[in-house]
Amino acid sequence: MLHFNCDYMEGCCPEILQRLTETNMEQSGGYGDDPYSFSCKEKIRQEFGCPDAEIYLLVGGTHTNSTVIDSIMQSYQGVLAVTTAHINVHEAGIVESHGHKILTLPSHDGKMWASDIRDWLTAFYGDQSHQHMVEPGMVYITFPTELGTSYTKQEMADIHAVCQEYNLPLYVDGARLGYGLAAYDCDITMKDLPQLCDAFYIGGTKVGALFGEAIVLTRKGMAKNFFTQTKRHGALLAKGRLLGVQFDAFFTDGLYMRLARHAIDCAERLKEILKEKGLTPYIESRTNQLFYTMTDEQIARWKDYVTFDLWDRLPDGRHIARFATSWATLPEHVEAMAELPENRG
Amino acid sequence: MLHFNCDYMEGCCPEILQRLTETNMEQSGGYGDDPYSFSCKEKIRQEFGCPDAEIYLLVGGTHTNSTVIDSIMQSYQGVLAVTTAHINVHEAGIVESHGHKILTLPSHDGKMWASDIRDWLTAFYGDQSHQHMVEPGMVYITFPTELGTSYTKQEMADIHAVCQEYNLPLYVDGARLGYGLAAYDCDITMKDLPQLCDAFYIGGTKVGALFGEAIVLTRKGMAKNFFTQTKRHGALLAKGRLLGVQFDAFFTDGLYMRLARHAIDCAERLKEILKEKGLTPYIESRTNQLFYTMTDEQIARWKDYVTFDLWDRLPDGRHIARFATSWATLPEHVEAMAELPENRG
Amino acid sequence: MLHFNCDYMEGCCPEILQRLTETNMEQSGGYGDDPYSFSCKEKIRQEFGCPDAEIYLLVGGTHTNSTVIDSIMQSYQGVLAVTTAHINVHEAGIVESHGHKILTLPSHDGKMWASDIRDWLTAFYGDQSHQHMVEPGMVYITFPTELGTSYTKQEMADIHAVCQEYNLPLYVDGARLGYGLAAYDCDITMKDLPQLCDAFYIGGTKVGALFGEAIVLTRKGMAKNFFTQTKRHGALLAKGRLLGVQFDAFFTDGLYMRLARHAIDCAERLKEILKEKGLTPYIESRTNQLFYTMTDEQIARWKDYVTFDLWDRLPDGRHIARFATSWATLPEHVEAMAELPENRG
Amino acid sequence: MLHFNCDYMEGCCPEILQRLTETNMEQSGGYGDDPYSFSCKEKIRQEFGCPDAEIYLLVGGTHTNSTVIDSIMQSYQGVLAVTTAHINVHEAGIVESHGHKILTLPSHDGKMWASDIRDWLTAFYGDQSHQHMVEPGMVYITFPTELGTSYTKQEMADIHAVCQEYNLPLYVDGARLGYGLAAYDCDITMKDLPQLCDAFYIGGTKVGALFGEAIVLTRKGMAKNFFTQTKRHGALLAKGRLLGVQFDAFFTDGLYMRLARHAIDCAERLKEILKEKGLTPYIESRTNQLFYTMTDEQIARWKDYVTFDLWDRLPDGRHIARFATSWATLPEHVEAMAELPENRG
Repeated sequence: MLHFNCDYMEGCCPEILQRLTETNMEQSGGYGDDPYSFSCKEKIRQEFGCPDAEIYLLVGGTHTNSTVIDSIMQSYQGVLAVTTAHINVHEAGIVESHGHKILTLPSHDGKMWASDIRDWLTAFYGDQSHQHMVEPGMVYITFPTELGTSYTKQEMADIHAVCQEYNLPLYVDGARLGYGLAAYDCDITMKDLPQLCDAFYIGGTKVGALFGEAIVLTRKGMAKNFFTQTKRHGALLAKGRLLGVQFDAFFTDGLYMRLARHAIDCAERLKEILKEKGLTPYIESRTNQLFYTMTDEQIARWKDYVTFDLWDRLPDGRHIARFATSWATLPEHVEAMAELPENRG
Repeated sequence: MLHFNCDYMEGCCPEILQRLTETNMEQSGGYGDDPYSFSCKEKIRQEFGCPDAEIYLLVGGTHTNSTVIDSIMQSYQGVLAVTTAHINVHEAGIVESHGHKILTLPSHDGKMWASDIRDWLTAFYGDQSHQHMVEPGMVYITFPTELGTSYTKQEMADIHAVCQEYNLPLYVDGARLGYGLAAYDCDITMKDLPQLCDAFYIGGTKVGALFGEAIVLTRKGMAKNFFTQTKRHGALLAKGRLLGVQFDAFFTDGLYMRLARHAIDCAERLKEILKEKGLTPYIESRTNQLFYTMTDEQIARWKDYVTFDLWDRLPDGRHIARFATSWATLPEHVEAMAELPENRG
Repeated sequence: MLHFNCDYMEGCCPEILQRLTETNMEQSGGYGDDPYSFSCKEKIRQEFGCPDAEIYLLVGGTHTNSTVIDSIMQSYQGVLAVTTAHINVHEAGIVESHGHKILTLPSHDGKMWASDIRDWLTAFYGDQSHQHMVEPGMVYITFPTELGTSYTKQEMADIHAVCQEYNLPLYVDGARLGYGLAAYDCDITMKDLPQLCDAFYIGGTKVGALFGEAIVLTRKGMAKNFFTQTKRHGALLAKGRLLGVQFDAFFTDGLYMRLARHAIDCAERLKEILKEKGLTPYIESRTNQLFYTMTDEQIARWKDYVTFDLWDRLPDGRHIARFATSWATLPEHVEAMAELPENRG
Repeated sequence: MLHFNCDYMEGCCPEILQRLTETNMEQSGGYGDDPYSFSCKEKIRQEFGCPDAEIYLLVGGTHTNSTVIDSIMQSYQGVLAVTTAHINVHEAGIVESHGHKILTLPSHDGKMWASDIRDWLTAFYGDQSHQHMVEPGMVYITFPTELGTSYTKQEMADIHAVCQEYNLPLYVDGARLGYGLAAYDCDITMKDLPQLCDAFYIGGTKVGALFGEAIVLTRKGMAKNFFTQTKRHGALLAKGRLLGVQFDAFFTDGLYMRLARHAIDCAERLKEILKEKGLTPYIESRTNQLFYTMTDEQIARWKDYVTFDLWDRLPDGRHIARFATSWATLPEHVEAMAELPENRG
């Protein structure tokens, strides 16, 4: 049986496991007060070209999002996001649990359009009763999106421009940041990113770490008392150096992007094979998550050979199936897909 | 200048003012522990035919909604409402401020469709990742809606049936309940209402009280410790008997519905006049709020004669204007509208 | 039967009732957009000598406290208050419901000591783990206190000085502000108050209004988007002019302080009578609330003549009884107390 | 330099590291849907003799506490805890951030007394205004306490009896559970614990895991929808099997208690040495954390030899110093303490 369910089925990449093992019995302070945490932050600042950034290491994506959003916004503000955004669908209401409304915009294959933001803000501030409504406090996008699509540099710049015009911080959820940056047609570099938004996080969990996400606040003072906010959100890891060691490994000798590129290479090859097999793409993915529409018959035809996720269901009864590659995908498993029976809809 | 801006421009109806004046210097316990509060609750139970109902008197609609919703649901649950629902638009995020997500359904001229609820719930429970999503905990509708439309008995029964099937309490925001029940084509009686939902509130502020909303929980034990929840929501009035006196007057000799019917009579006559004047209805209202599309020119044409609300703006630039009548509308003011210049779009 | 249970047993003072009656059928905008609200705010600015103050009119004390506290502090901060503070005991956890911890200091007969604040802050910032603790964001005191005591000008100035040193806004809960200022030995004037704190509210409910509290933020910009915060806290009254009319009457011809002084005169006379009767003061009250220790026998001895509140119970089984006068207390009712049987403990 | 600062300075014990390494490249479902999570839960049920318990694996203590407390209580309820409780001091207000007040009882060297609970509850329900106050919803204690003390079986049974009388769930924070159970004079066994409370957690982070806490809800249905609550609290680990693998190792061949006993052995030996050196115990600790009062001079005298924590400061200026042993403490490091200069106060 082959497995393409998701990108966090394994533990961590060998380089990280080795470093965790080597440093295991060292003694260090807790909560990030250790040499590995300091060192990895410096490497991130260099790699992403943002020498003044404040960097925080957290365990998982959901509390990362809620901590950043709750820390940057005033308590009474809401966050603009597309309807399919992870925070709006799959985080069990954690943003609302801290009192913030998610103000939804249309999702264009998972992406937000700069023009939609502008229209929404124009309507909001043009509404005579807007003081009875939730004030927008920031904009949230995912890069790449939950649907495998991603933004061009121009699209990001357009979004950022509207945000700056309305003084709204732009926050980029980078749960799969590496996979987005490694996409074949991505024209955004690591050094571009801090120029294109105000805050983002570098996803580790899905790109080869045991766990871990690195928050980058591109300017000093963006969020007050962030350390305490992290604790208050239950997101502060006691043995914080575990995060430091992992991100230090990620940003030594380009490991992070190397892992990401491997997943993209596998995904591109898998895309070819699935096309040959007759599957119909649901969406034109650029990253490590591929979405296809499949009938019950198609699913049945492959059920003994490969596992994948059923993401959603269309009104006509067809499923949206997700095939995910990752840093850990074995090329021979991808090639083994070529041996499967044809599977046209 | 004539005023049709909203239905809370005046103080209270004379009958209520008189009772407040007569009882002003009586001494009573606070927080609803007074004879008027007890008496009015008994009258409401009789009038609406729900002898076991628990009734609470609060000051305004927004804290009424937040207290009911937060008290009926578990902390981690969300409330289903249409996108145009008052709680979703004009209550400054108070529902989210207590941690609850609003799960939105399409608005059909302000109304929710039973079939949309069913489809949503089917999709939700059919989604393999629904435990990562906000669990639905209740359904919220407005009667009549924010757009002046309302539900037929069958429509309410259909919604209630889906709710019961999924064990979701149905809560009816009755900020303008009287105006909904008094609508010419309304086939729902006061005694029907407690059978068609699980909780509702009888709007006083907009129907002739100085302020005040009466919450009716149709079954005992629906919400635990509701008194304390009211206090915790800042919604407990110290001199609670002010609410008791007003609702006691409302439900003495049919005052509440008499006031409501007056507003509907005025609205129906106003509708005739505005049609003659050439205004284009935006929506076919049945209640005391009438919505029309108006160009900038049309607005300018009447600006020296009458005030009304600009509710929203259409993509083509036209405004949606709201004309509201109320218990206080003077019939001669309605007739005076017939003297205005014609105003075609 | 005589009643000295609390200071909100009646409706409102005749002057306010008259103004509400006179203006009842006038038409005005909602939510405070009316001439009475504007006028009363100007009068308050003059009377208290704070021309730049931002003033907001709310219905009751509990949502006033929660709105001010939640608006002035950052979401992760806590508020310093004494253990007996109203917000810590009798507001059903509304402050915590918006995410804020109450950081408690000792209560000295209901009062906070400047030295306690300083000690607490010194210990807090001296604690190496204080970033794991709730950061103090403001200081809350009541004037007069829940126990009938009050602050001298020097005591308030000392508290304010510590607050300013640590950049903590000082907020004064003035639910019974008038009764505090009217106390015979009070050396604080209305014009002193805005110099001695950063925010306070002028209690109306207990001093002769039907309801209503006027928040005074002494400096512009202290709290962002306060109007929306009010709405979000369920504290925005639709017919806001009801508040404007009442506070306009309060601050016309010195009505507010006249009503307050009447209650104090009654309280001072009642204090004499209760002393003669043999009751033992629990605390030396300066205001309209008098506290006595009473045994079960003493309570029984007067049960047919007068009602009063049982406030708390001492470890030795004696009760703490509260006798409250108000603007509405009839002097003949006070004198009638002199006719009661002696009642020594 | 010797280090006795805290019990989470190293990574994990070798047995756990080995299992993480061996299983690293296995593929499994996320969020706890893996064989290791299932297996360790079964072992915990057996080891603690609670076959019906619901068990959840979370990353850290703070979000464990907040998730359990918020899930067991109604939204409007508060939790009883002593003033020195971890949730009341060192969790940055996370309990309040979900709307719950912490109702404080006196700390007796870190412990709660059954009699204090009873007195508090008697006073609460005897107070005529208790509906204006926060209703108690559960009781929280730590075992062992933050001050190194612990409960006898009888003391726990007494507390549990009061809780049951008032229908309050008793929750035991076991961040250092192993160290408490391994204390030389502890008369509580693993199998006793589920009989003595309603919920507890087995601390992993401080007892040899990289991270991880296992929540044991002793009865089915204690907390609704706990999985979703975990997600909503940001406490759900994507690669949940990392927790499963660690707890599976803990409860294989008695590893957990073996590690704990080692720390206690080291602590007892260290206690002897520190006594010989002349240090004055601040409190009579039974577990792996030892507290001493030390003057500035005493601290200076050892500053080049050993690191330890300064926990708090006494009014007389002396410090409270904490020396912590752990599963990782090297016996030779303990013995090396005997070589230090004498250090009398």
